[in-house]
Amino acid sequence: MIETPYLLFLGDAPDQLAAKVAQGIKDWRPENAVGQFRMEGCKADLGLKDMDLVEAREAGAKTLVIGVANRGGVISQEWKKVLVMALEEGFDLASGLHNLLRDEPDLVAVAEATGRKLHDVRVPEVDYPIANGIRRKGKRCLAVGTDCSVGKMYTALAMDREMRERGMKCTFRATGQTGILITGDGVPLDAVVADFMAGSIEWLTPDNDDDHWDLIEGQGSLFHVSYSGVTMALIHGGQPDALILCHEPTREHMRGLPTYSLPSLETLRDTALQIARVANPDCQVVGVSVNTQHMSEADAEAYLAQVEADMGLPATDPFRFGSGKLVDALAAM
Amino acid sequence: MIETPYLLFLGDAPDQLAAKVAQGIKDWRPENAVGQFRMEGCKADLGLKDMDLVEAREAGAKTLVIGVANRGGVISQEWKKVLVMALEEGFDLASGLHNLLRDEPDLVAVAEATGRKLHDVRVPEVDYPIANGIRRKGKRCLAVGTDCSVGKMYTALAMDREMRERGMKCTFRATGQTGILITGDGVPLDAVVADFMAGSIEWLTPDNDDDHWDLIEGQGSLFHVSYSGVTMALIHGGQPDALILCHEPTREHMRGLPTYSLPSLETLRDTALQIARVANPDCQVVGVSVNTQHMSEADAEAYLAQVEADMGLPATDPFRFGSGKLVDALAAM
Repeated sequence: MIETPYLLFLGDAPDQLAAKVAQGIKDWRPENAVGQFRMEGCKADLGLKDMDLVEAREAGAKTLVIGVANRGGVISQEWKKVLVMALEEGFDLASGLHNLLRDEPDLVAVAEATGRKLHDVRVPEVDYPIANGIRRKGKRCLAVGTDCSVGKMYTALAMDREMRERGMKCTFRATGQTGILITGDGVPLDAVVADFMAGSIEWLTPDNDDDHWDLIEGQGSLFHVSYSGVTMALIHGGQPDALILCHEPTREHMRGLPTYSLPSLETLRDTALQIARVANPDCQVVGVSVNTQHMSEADAEAYLAQVEADMGLPATDPFRFGSGKLVDALAAM
Repeated sequence: MIETPYLLFLGDAPDQLAAKVAQGIKDWRPENAVGQFRMEGCKADLGLKDMDLVEAREAGAKTLVIGVANRGGVISQEWKKVLVMALEEGFDLASGLHNLLRDEPDLVAVAEATGRKLHDVRVPEVDYPIANGIRRKGKRCLAVGTDCSVGKMYTALAMDREMRERGMKCTFRATGQTGILITGDGVPLDAVVADFMAGSIEWLTPDNDDDHWDLIEGQGSLFHVSYSGVTMALIHGGQPDALILCHEPTREHMRGLPTYSLPSLETLRDTALQIARVANPDCQVVGVSVNTQHMSEADAEAYLAQVEADMGLPATDPFRFGSGKLVDALAAM
């Protein structure tokens, strides 16, 4: 659990895209983002107030979050200077970088001396149990994709926002690095040891109020041979009551697998539902989320109308047209 | 890779069952078992020659394998005395115990001083790649179960033996602790980090001769919610050409999950085949292996005949009636 709110460290980001983790935090949890810290030459700007460490501390920030990708897989000396000062100033540090904060002896030494925490969100910090399969109270929704990186996290976050605005009880449950930094909590599922994957998701989505929805961040795809085991554990550990199918219609093959075709939405529906009902016989597929970023608005609307007609399910692009239809479907359950 | 042959350490085993790992090595790879080492009070006996360390060394043994479960999860001082002497005598040590050899400072110190290796087969020793999904040459067979612990490893080992006897090209590919100790090599899949599960199985079953069969040890079950992600990765990483369905007809619920029923063989067939064909469109279900240990011989024969009639597939209990029918099915492909 990472202490919020954050000061977002943008470092010497070469462009706006390099700061996409910080952008995600600002977009989805603006209340967690007190300000931004930019170094000389930084080309990213979140439109937040630029703060130095003392200002951010006075504004209530508890953790400096590295919201930017580093270059060459090395935490540079220029960054280190800021990170060490932040520890001295009383901030914890949080990072989703491949190279871990805990592998930097100087940061470890200063963190120990100052009593501050180093959060590497790629690495599990909990001893998860083996899944017991016992049904839990409360409701759970999971987005499953025809492929990886088709908008599963975005869909869950957009539904979470819409449900909050409607006053529905819900919690976004992060299962990946970016989601964990956005919310300050979660399970880095792709780094969990095989035997404990499903158990980690049971741990993440415990008993809750009958009218509370966990919106579980999806990972991988049942049809992506590199990561399908992770998706399977997520479905069986999550015991979803509702599945949202996610798809990107212009993709020509499975991500990173040039000889693998995407399944149809019908195939995804049938396969995911059959698997989900092993853990939760009441599970239903309730909607379709389509990433239409590579389509014109007219094409997107026509595609969504066709999907609704073919599947008999509400279909939307939550980025372009909002997630209202998907939330309506959950509310109707 | 563990150096063979072995001296099998039975320690102070309280009964024969405690030495089941050693029994498995002796049963399936007698050529790997030079002799047994028993301490005072040992109640297990494999019928191998009792040897002290010097005798075993002279007989060619390279590794002392701990083939017995320990009591209370502690490596006792009595055991340590033998293990240290074995290192001094020039043996490597291999163990599938939960408490690791590498966590015992005295064993580590002596192993370093003597230049010997400590193999904890529960812990991966390889940095596995992420699966790339590329089709590999050679053929692969995987046993999948309606539940955990229904005889998948036994089935693969029995087929491996039968195929060797017929002069067919084959390799048993171990994916669990016992299998790894039996063969000296393999992937401890349940301990692999999620993202690398499927890749570890690709690594384990590389390109081979067109007429060579990998007999991959199954793990878990697609229908066991605690471990289904492991099974999924095994199917997609293994790219099996042939699936064997494994079942134990008297089991009343999924192992460790009292509220979960076992799927039918038909459901297992349809689900596993659909999933396997994502990675290998040519995959076929070729036979059924039934663990009939809790049935009379007449009941077992009647049950197998019924399965053959219902499924249109050869069915056998490889322990009771041999694995010939299953090997015939592979040979016919």
